[in-house]
Amino acid sequence: MNTFGNIFRLTSFGESHGEAVGGVIDGCPPGISMDLEFIQAELDRRKPGQSSITTPRKESDKVEFLSGIFEGKTTGVPIGFIIRNNNQHSADYDNMKDLYRPSHADYTYQTKYGHRDHRGGGRSSARETISRCVAGALAKLALKEIGIDIKAYTSQVGSVRVSKAYTELDLNKIESTPVRCPDLDVAQEMIKLIHEVKSTGDTIGGIITCVCTGVPVGLGAPVFNKLHAAMAAAMLGINAVKGFEYGLGFEGVQHRGSEINDIFYGTEDGKIKTKTNHSGGIQGGISSGEDIYFRVAFKPVATILMEQETVDKSGKDVVLKAKGRHDSCVLPRAVPIVEAMAAMTILDFYLLNKTVHI
Amino acid sequence: MNTFGNIFRLTSFGESHGEAVGGVIDGCPPGISMDLEFIQAELDRRKPGQSSITTPRKESDKVEFLSGIFEGKTTGVPIGFIIRNNNQHSADYDNMKDLYRPSHADYTYQTKYGHRDHRGGGRSSARETISRCVAGALAKLALKEIGIDIKAYTSQVGSVRVSKAYTELDLNKIESTPVRCPDLDVAQEMIKLIHEVKSTGDTIGGIITCVCTGVPVGLGAPVFNKLHAAMAAAMLGINAVKGFEYGLGFEGVQHRGSEINDIFYGTEDGKIKTKTNHSGGIQGGISSGEDIYFRVAFKPVATILMEQETVDKSGKDVVLKAKGRHDSCVLPRAVPIVEAMAAMTILDFYLLNKTVHI
Amino acid sequence: MNTFGNIFRLTSFGESHGEAVGGVIDGCPPGISMDLEFIQAELDRRKPGQSSITTPRKESDKVEFLSGIFEGKTTGVPIGFIIRNNNQHSADYDNMKDLYRPSHADYTYQTKYGHRDHRGGGRSSARETISRCVAGALAKLALKEIGIDIKAYTSQVGSVRVSKAYTELDLNKIESTPVRCPDLDVAQEMIKLIHEVKSTGDTIGGIITCVCTGVPVGLGAPVFNKLHAAMAAAMLGINAVKGFEYGLGFEGVQHRGSEINDIFYGTEDGKIKTKTNHSGGIQGGISSGEDIYFRVAFKPVATILMEQETVDKSGKDVVLKAKGRHDSCVLPRAVPIVEAMAAMTILDFYLLNKTVHI
Amino acid sequence: MNTFGNIFRLTSFGESHGEAVGGVIDGCPPGISMDLEFIQAELDRRKPGQSSITTPRKESDKVEFLSGIFEGKTTGVPIGFIIRNNNQHSADYDNMKDLYRPSHADYTYQTKYGHRDHRGGGRSSARETISRCVAGALAKLALKEIGIDIKAYTSQVGSVRVSKAYTELDLNKIESTPVRCPDLDVAQEMIKLIHEVKSTGDTIGGIITCVCTGVPVGLGAPVFNKLHAAMAAAMLGINAVKGFEYGLGFEGVQHRGSEINDIFYGTEDGKIKTKTNHSGGIQGGISSGEDIYFRVAFKPVATILMEQETVDKSGKDVVLKAKGRHDSCVLPRAVPIVEAMAAMTILDFYLLNKTVHI
Repeated sequence: MNTFGNIFRLTSFGESHGEAVGGVIDGCPPGISMDLEFIQAELDRRKPGQSSITTPRKESDKVEFLSGIFEGKTTGVPIGFIIRNNNQHSADYDNMKDLYRPSHADYTYQTKYGHRDHRGGGRSSARETISRCVAGALAKLALKEIGIDIKAYTSQVGSVRVSKAYTELDLNKIESTPVRCPDLDVAQEMIKLIHEVKSTGDTIGGIITCVCTGVPVGLGAPVFNKLHAAMAAAMLGINAVKGFEYGLGFEGVQHRGSEINDIFYGTEDGKIKTKTNHSGGIQGGISSGEDIYFRVAFKPVATILMEQETVDKSGKDVVLKAKGRHDSCVLPRAVPIVEAMAAMTILDFYLLNKTVHI
Repeated sequence: MNTFGNIFRLTSFGESHGEAVGGVIDGCPPGISMDLEFIQAELDRRKPGQSSITTPRKESDKVEFLSGIFEGKTTGVPIGFIIRNNNQHSADYDNMKDLYRPSHADYTYQTKYGHRDHRGGGRSSARETISRCVAGALAKLALKEIGIDIKAYTSQVGSVRVSKAYTELDLNKIESTPVRCPDLDVAQEMIKLIHEVKSTGDTIGGIITCVCTGVPVGLGAPVFNKLHAAMAAAMLGINAVKGFEYGLGFEGVQHRGSEINDIFYGTEDGKIKTKTNHSGGIQGGISSGEDIYFRVAFKPVATILMEQETVDKSGKDVVLKAKGRHDSCVLPRAVPIVEAMAAMTILDFYLLNKTVHI
Repeated sequence: MNTFGNIFRLTSFGESHGEAVGGVIDGCPPGISMDLEFIQAELDRRKPGQSSITTPRKESDKVEFLSGIFEGKTTGVPIGFIIRNNNQHSADYDNMKDLYRPSHADYTYQTKYGHRDHRGGGRSSARETISRCVAGALAKLALKEIGIDIKAYTSQVGSVRVSKAYTELDLNKIESTPVRCPDLDVAQEMIKLIHEVKSTGDTIGGIITCVCTGVPVGLGAPVFNKLHAAMAAAMLGINAVKGFEYGLGFEGVQHRGSEINDIFYGTEDGKIKTKTNHSGGIQGGISSGEDIYFRVAFKPVATILMEQETVDKSGKDVVLKAKGRHDSCVLPRAVPIVEAMAAMTILDFYLLNKTVHI
Repeated sequence: MNTFGNIFRLTSFGESHGEAVGGVIDGCPPGISMDLEFIQAELDRRKPGQSSITTPRKESDKVEFLSGIFEGKTTGVPIGFIIRNNNQHSADYDNMKDLYRPSHADYTYQTKYGHRDHRGGGRSSARETISRCVAGALAKLALKEIGIDIKAYTSQVGSVRVSKAYTELDLNKIESTPVRCPDLDVAQEMIKLIHEVKSTGDTIGGIITCVCTGVPVGLGAPVFNKLHAAMAAAMLGINAVKGFEYGLGFEGVQHRGSEINDIFYGTEDGKIKTKTNHSGGIQGGISSGEDIYFRVAFKPVATILMEQETVDKSGKDVVLKAKGRHDSCVLPRAVPIVEAMAAMTILDFYLLNKTVHI
């Protein structure tokens, strides 16, 4: 069950302190030019140690492709790839072998599997998400050929939030600040807050907003496999995510139908569009041709550099003081992961949609 | 793609104004006693016309089981079932054949499939959810045998909300009011609001909270198939749902890790529990043994009994005035649907978890 | 796991002596004209009681479609259908409730599920295959639109066999004889043999040959999902089937590569064809554009109208004398089932192949 | 679609002349001791260059495990692994870039994907099967813990065949001869035949028989997912396989029901067994507790070291003379591959069967 997708599929493997993380990308269309520079740049966006507001763990995070590529292009057969782990400080975790860190997966993994690699969180570490960024980068390259673009940004850290709608922002400025917020004033406040939280050894959560443009009408299936249901599963599959909403989301429950129904109109060139897009680009589970946008809530990461009470495997009280190297706020590094999962989902549903008609 | 689940699976069929809706339940454990009275009662909870705050469409909604049951018990082979449609007013939709209702699936279905049954929303109608209630009722019967209970309630309508946590409410009172809110004072306000909205021909959204108790440790898989990712997909697969959050959800992003980490302690009888449950009963994608709770946001339904501008298939401006019989607020009838989807998801992951060990 | 297919999918339900058999066809392309006469004719080909060489059980076998069809055409949403059972003689099976019929599924079902419907074989009865014929008929209608045709015939009964290759036969004569063998002389011998076997209360096996013409190049996936691997699974999924071979099959193992390699040549209109087709229309798991042909081995059905030793549930020796109404040779009625499974497989892979390119 | 299995799943990648072949094993139960010596020995059984009757291509075929193992045991999370390719003679294939080798996948791959790695057959090379042997070895280690054993042997090469049933052979002698035939006299004839065929540059086919002992009652699902249907798909998924039969298979079609029905009897210790096992250990798609046995037909490999006519991409006639290093008879090296696929299938269905009861 470590496979994501129906047609374009990523099967991922790897633990935080194992030999390598990696995966197999299956169902990638043939003939996509491998822009290795772009792919590496995507990995660098989620890399630890990229700025003063991320964990200092240093990983080169160089991806090695092992199959599925010939003469610089994908061939349609599976693309195997690995990224070696090389900056593990496994000894940092020796004292955690037999205790359960609060709000971590230690207890549930141990109970489910009976035997686990505890070092650095093992399989539950967000280090695994590097495989998603590789597959997501490939998905983006494929989507680019059909005019689909996906951009995510940090729209809230703690209670510091962007009040403008995405349509009022210049999304090309996302990469201008280390926190990946295109509203530059708000970005400065976010960075300040993260530094303050970091200085206390604590952590803080936030929200990422994602926008998919150029998605054609028709992606998604009725009833269970609605496009937004798949997108929700994709996002909730990311570490530390606690919520998902699209279009007006939770805020929309307070409105009346007459206020937020999206009114259709015909364009001069014969297309059908809507005057507003409160629906978030999806109607009845199927993309409408309008922008798809959604928001993803991240809790503060569980590892804090403060003393915490907990228990060991036998249930005895102990006090934990984490060492390791950790992020005070995962949002900036989670932006490319949100994009990667969104790109895989959209490409998967794009390919799936080709099976509708004979 | 009209199949839900991995092991316990519902394949659903049927349109609003077709001959029947129904489905096939596959992977139901054998030996479950068919409590037909209970199953019918579940259907009656979502039935139209059950109170003054729901649509007056009258359907008997009697389920007929066609297979998979012998001597009053399930046999482990697929359970086919149908519910005849018998109160269609198809003529109500004649004027909608060639136009696109705002914020409905008409346009996206037409564009995707090229040919569709427009009557009553066809396949995109929430009438399909009756099949889910049948399968959900069976799932509940199976879960009952292992001590798992699932209860949902209306926690917000418009801006009228329950301010108490679910732990402070008596969930046995959910069915005491037609709006299915166990806080009886708030329930009266909700009903008042729905009546007021209804009198204007408008609609209103809301939030349903769901609580799963008795879920053992270990359900859910790492990385992609996290239990909450599956639950999110289940909920976003329900008509009109725009958001999902579990545990502290969106609100939790403002907190610091030190405030909301769930501290473990050992119980006197040797179990390991947490002092708080901000995580919502799931750690690292795997159930922790604490209550699982989550919230689901419903937009106001798109059909309003007011004039709306829209276009016809050719893109020409037209004015729409819906007839039909509709709900002003779907929340009361959506409560059993949320429970049904939750029950199917939990049972599916319970069965899946049995494959972990040899 | 009662679902067949990836994109075009049949989920089947129903037991021999239950209320009804039926299913849900998902992923059927929209816009296919429902030729109800053709569909019923397909069901009549597998119907019991159609000739002197089949079981005298009388079933009208009228299919009722419940969804997915509008104005005489498929709409792309799931097609639910049922066929009522109405000629059960359940009392014929009363004496079998507690014993295990030799070479039947009684013992394995009872052990696996603990509770089963024993009447008429329950779920293991070939009555379930009627659902496949419904879905297969729809698949044929869709395939016809892209020029693909599927024909099967009885090529061997006991040791009476057709010695000619399919290319030497007039496949339009398949329906000329009740045994469905287009070599009319051999057909007479087969019928004679079946009558003789029937007169003793015994049963006899045989082989069905199937030919798919007009299949374009490219169906099938490398490695695991080879087209012939899916076809083998489809065929072995039919009751009483014990073997599958395609192209030269088992006979080919005795040949040398130089004898049976299929030599390519260019046609005048720029196509690439092979001079021979020992490969059976598939190379490396992918259809080559040549005819796909394969053979399916059926054992003699297990129910014989003779005394047999066996045991009851407690393991005690008993003597069984089947009553019921049974086929002495299933081959004639299995011909449309083989075609149906082949049609579903080819259509499924045709649709799947559309996902390869962006 | 390069994933095999439902619960225990192998996702495979890699081409003949790429960087590496490998895969991800998902759903492997935790706590299985990694017997690396055993795993490597399994790979050595399929390794090229192991004897005078196999291809002289030399590969060390050392597997490197990258995840999913901790302290010498599996942890239940995915096991990534790679095997580097290091003895490619890609230049041998330069002259084949633009032509289609007879009875190879060149033409179908090129037509399907448009862009492919032609070197050494690329993805269609049997080199990929090394990944299956890794996963199969792990499956065998898991199956050993529950008393299931799987053994395959070469039972026919060309027309040289073992006439004894598997029950009359000493299966511990399979590895005594390089052709992997436990009937030592027949083995000598087979080897002689292979040498003779090899001396002419030609190739020859054959049959492998496989026996699974210790399989408990209950594996397999009714209707589509019969155990033997999955086994057939597994076997037809191996390169060069053209047929599959289990139990009496094709030969059994000539018998009458009264001759081959398997009669039940009760054992002294209260079990239920059958006097004969013509059914091949499966009844109604579900394992019966008797030995499962089946036969797999391999065509002669298509690459012959003789001149052959063919065409290039433009359809123009050319003459091909293969260089490369090839097997004259793949049977000896295919024995471990058949076992590996059988082991994966049995383990997968064993785990799946655990989901039946609550």
